[in-house]
Amino acid sequence: MIIKSLLAKDNPYNSTEEIREWIKRRNIEVTVNVEQIAFSQMKSWHSNCDGSIHHDTGKFFSIVGIDVKTDYGTNNHWRQPIINQPEVGYLGILTKEIDGVLYCLMQAKIEPGNVNCVQISPTLQATKSNYTRVHSGKSPNYLEYFVNAKPENIILDQLQSEQGARFLRKRNRNIIIKVDEDVPMLEEFRWMTLGQIKELMCENNMVNMDTRTVLSGLVISDYVTPLDGLNGMSEFGRGLILSSITNHSYISTREHLSWLTALKSKFDLLVSPCSVLEMPGWIKNDREIVREDGKYFKIIGVNVTISNREVAAWCQPLVRPMQNGICAFIIKKINGVYHFLVQAKLECGNFDVMELAPTVQCLTDKVYGDDKPEFYDYVMNARGGQVLVDVIQSEEGGRFYHEQNRNLIIEADASFPLELPPRYTWMTLRQIYNFLRFNNYLNIQARSLISALRYK
Amino acid sequence: MIIKSLLAKDNPYNSTEEIREWIKRRNIEVTVNVEQIAFSQMKSWHSNCDGSIHHDTGKFFSIVGIDVKTDYGTNNHWRQPIINQPEVGYLGILTKEIDGVLYCLMQAKIEPGNVNCVQISPTLQATKSNYTRVHSGKSPNYLEYFVNAKPENIILDQLQSEQGARFLRKRNRNIIIKVDEDVPMLEEFRWMTLGQIKELMCENNMVNMDTRTVLSGLVISDYVTPLDGLNGMSEFGRGLILSSITNHSYISTREHLSWLTALKSKFDLLVSPCSVLEMPGWIKNDREIVREDGKYFKIIGVNVTISNREVAAWCQPLVRPMQNGICAFIIKKINGVYHFLVQAKLECGNFDVMELAPTVQCLTDKVYGDDKPEFYDYVMNARGGQVLVDVIQSEEGGRFYHEQNRNLIIEADASFPLELPPRYTWMTLRQIYNFLRFNNYLNIQARSLISALRYK
Repeated sequence: MIIKSLLAKDNPYNSTEEIREWIKRRNIEVTVNVEQIAFSQMKSWHSNCDGSIHHDTGKFFSIVGIDVKTDYGTNNHWRQPIINQPEVGYLGILTKEIDGVLYCLMQAKIEPGNVNCVQISPTLQATKSNYTRVHSGKSPNYLEYFVNAKPENIILDQLQSEQGARFLRKRNRNIIIKVDEDVPMLEEFRWMTLGQIKELMCENNMVNMDTRTVLSGLVISDYVTPLDGLNGMSEFGRGLILSSITNHSYISTREHLSWLTALKSKFDLLVSPCSVLEMPGWIKNDREIVREDGKYFKIIGVNVTISNREVAAWCQPLVRPMQNGICAFIIKKINGVYHFLVQAKLECGNFDVMELAPTVQCLTDKVYGDDKPEFYDYVMNARGGQVLVDVIQSEEGGRFYHEQNRNLIIEADASFPLELPPRYTWMTLRQIYNFLRFNNYLNIQARSLISALRYK
Repeated sequence: MIIKSLLAKDNPYNSTEEIREWIKRRNIEVTVNVEQIAFSQMKSWHSNCDGSIHHDTGKFFSIVGIDVKTDYGTNNHWRQPIINQPEVGYLGILTKEIDGVLYCLMQAKIEPGNVNCVQISPTLQATKSNYTRVHSGKSPNYLEYFVNAKPENIILDQLQSEQGARFLRKRNRNIIIKVDEDVPMLEEFRWMTLGQIKELMCENNMVNMDTRTVLSGLVISDYVTPLDGLNGMSEFGRGLILSSITNHSYISTREHLSWLTALKSKFDLLVSPCSVLEMPGWIKNDREIVREDGKYFKIIGVNVTISNREVAAWCQPLVRPMQNGICAFIIKKINGVYHFLVQAKLECGNFDVMELAPTVQCLTDKVYGDDKPEFYDYVMNARGGQVLVDVIQSEEGGRFYHEQNRNLIIEADASFPLELPPRYTWMTLRQIYNFLRFNNYLNIQARSLISALRYK
């Protein structure tokens, strides 16, 4: 059912072309207005005397200052603003089996920070404040299916992290449920196969981050049965299946665990609250919290007016990046099995010090100058058949304003060395999925890339 | 080699009786003096103006106040002192294969809080401050073997949590290494088989907490080969092996992950720093930080003089409990396979909100009165053959003064229900070990009980 959904040629409800048209149409139909305003003008939000920004209910999220001390990297002590959102939200996809094929109920959802307004989103995307109705709006659509799901109808249910450089230990409940009953179809929703969603992921800024993180946890090979003809898969797809099921890994999971334990033990990460008004290199005025050198990102306040949200107009802070980023996995066949080049990366908001990240995860060149991250040049110089994925993806538009990352998957050539620097290792897809099942191992950038793997 | 170590009848280096005698003798030979003193008299320690207690170097650990807000349980907002020790320490056992049998190099180690002074401890027990020599003492014995261990010589290497009610997100690196070269034998060290250590664990306060947590991660069944005769195992031991290898679990790991995700999403845990002097129900005077109602625990300052430590005399704070506790697993054969009754428990210092805990984990009766925890009566009323383990174990004597827990493993009778309350589930040993491999799933009390499982 999942394999059929991945390989299905046609969707009798909506062709891929129709979905594209629908998203385009929604973008035209819906009126969106995002206007930068002064922090003091943000209705229902206030600044505390330490400069931190909070919702008047104390719920949703806040912008706070943190003091970071670490012995990782070259900068060992800094302060920065960060999004503090201690609640666990839902990112849920409702699915249904129709004629042996699994369909996902996807939403055309507008977020204020989206570069193109509407993107394909999970069925349910709700913070605890949303679904406990702190804002007195209507209850999120389809919430009750997730709240009432029986264990046997839950396909996937994981706590996963968000961006560790921007969120303080934020996590979401990534969940996929399968319903048997008929589901009412609302205007902004459509049934899509997994294959369609993965096809649409090849287009820039079409499938939102929340969809990508939820789907990243779905282990395709778990659903392969002898009855599934894999002829519909590409050679690369069959290679991914092999990598997902094989025990023939270049490095054992025991060694991976030891490697990660050693790194987490080696590097200290001490994060403590600090005043937003006492962050060297940062200034807060009435319109933004911004670095004097213009690097990294700034915090702005916006007034949003949207016609098809639970609440039609509201104010909120957004994080606005100063440049785009790159997330790239290098993969390589070792003894005939695809291995991913994974790095262990420390970010200040990480729940557990270090998470498994793509081979390259960085901002675009300006910040780095001559001090480029490992494998950066290899990734940027890859050409032709080496480039398996190359697409611009958006970060979550509910918190980030026009933030985009170039997502790349690069197949290494035969001469690429197997020996790696200390913070890097090789993992099969089976090993990656094994870590992914448990909380806070793979970071959101790595998950975004894993979700982009295509089997057709 | 590990199975032989577990089942070996004789240790040509030291019989179990000799080890017992040696520990007894060390207890007599060594002079230990632990004297409660005023906080202000603690050399190298000071109190900040918020009442928190720190080492003058800023290293080791500190006693701080935390404000806890949670929607778990009946008490939803409280303040308490807690040990803050953000460093990751080593708990390491050095092993060597001699004539096909694995021997562990164990230490007779004195800790100031131990009820009986000397207990059997890992080869290495060192905080980062210890091994980076903040206190200018000599480098811990055998440290270099752990620091220089090659990946292929590492048997186990995990980050594991400490007591979540007493430590703020504290973790240690639990590591077992195997060396090939000859190792110099120091006075306080002896070679022991795994079987001997497990036998000694049946005696009250003989094997310290650090040994128990390190050994808990060793998955015995991973080392069973067709060449190992399991005849030397008890019927219970063979039942544990079956439970460690079988796929026939009553509840799937997928369901466990979903169950735990749902619980971690449901319960909020907000921990923020607060002044030790502003904790309702607690008072700090010059000699202790203590509750007005005398419940739970208090913080004291001590002056310690010991003859065989790296540093012979020092001052430090200790946590002194007001009563002892109980940690008990109920186990039950379901479809012929032993399953453990595990609870998901929230404690304020937990790294990840909830950890997997024993069926019953509580203080002895005084605090509870009529409001007894689930399964408490069942455990306390178990008799005869139902009681598989019943032993008093000490908590870590480097931080806790005379803290002891009664460790019980109880086999449920046939009529014990399979249906459980929401925070409880059944797991095979294979499932438990699978969680245990990853960080912060099994709490220290659960691990202590797992380590007590005997196969002979």
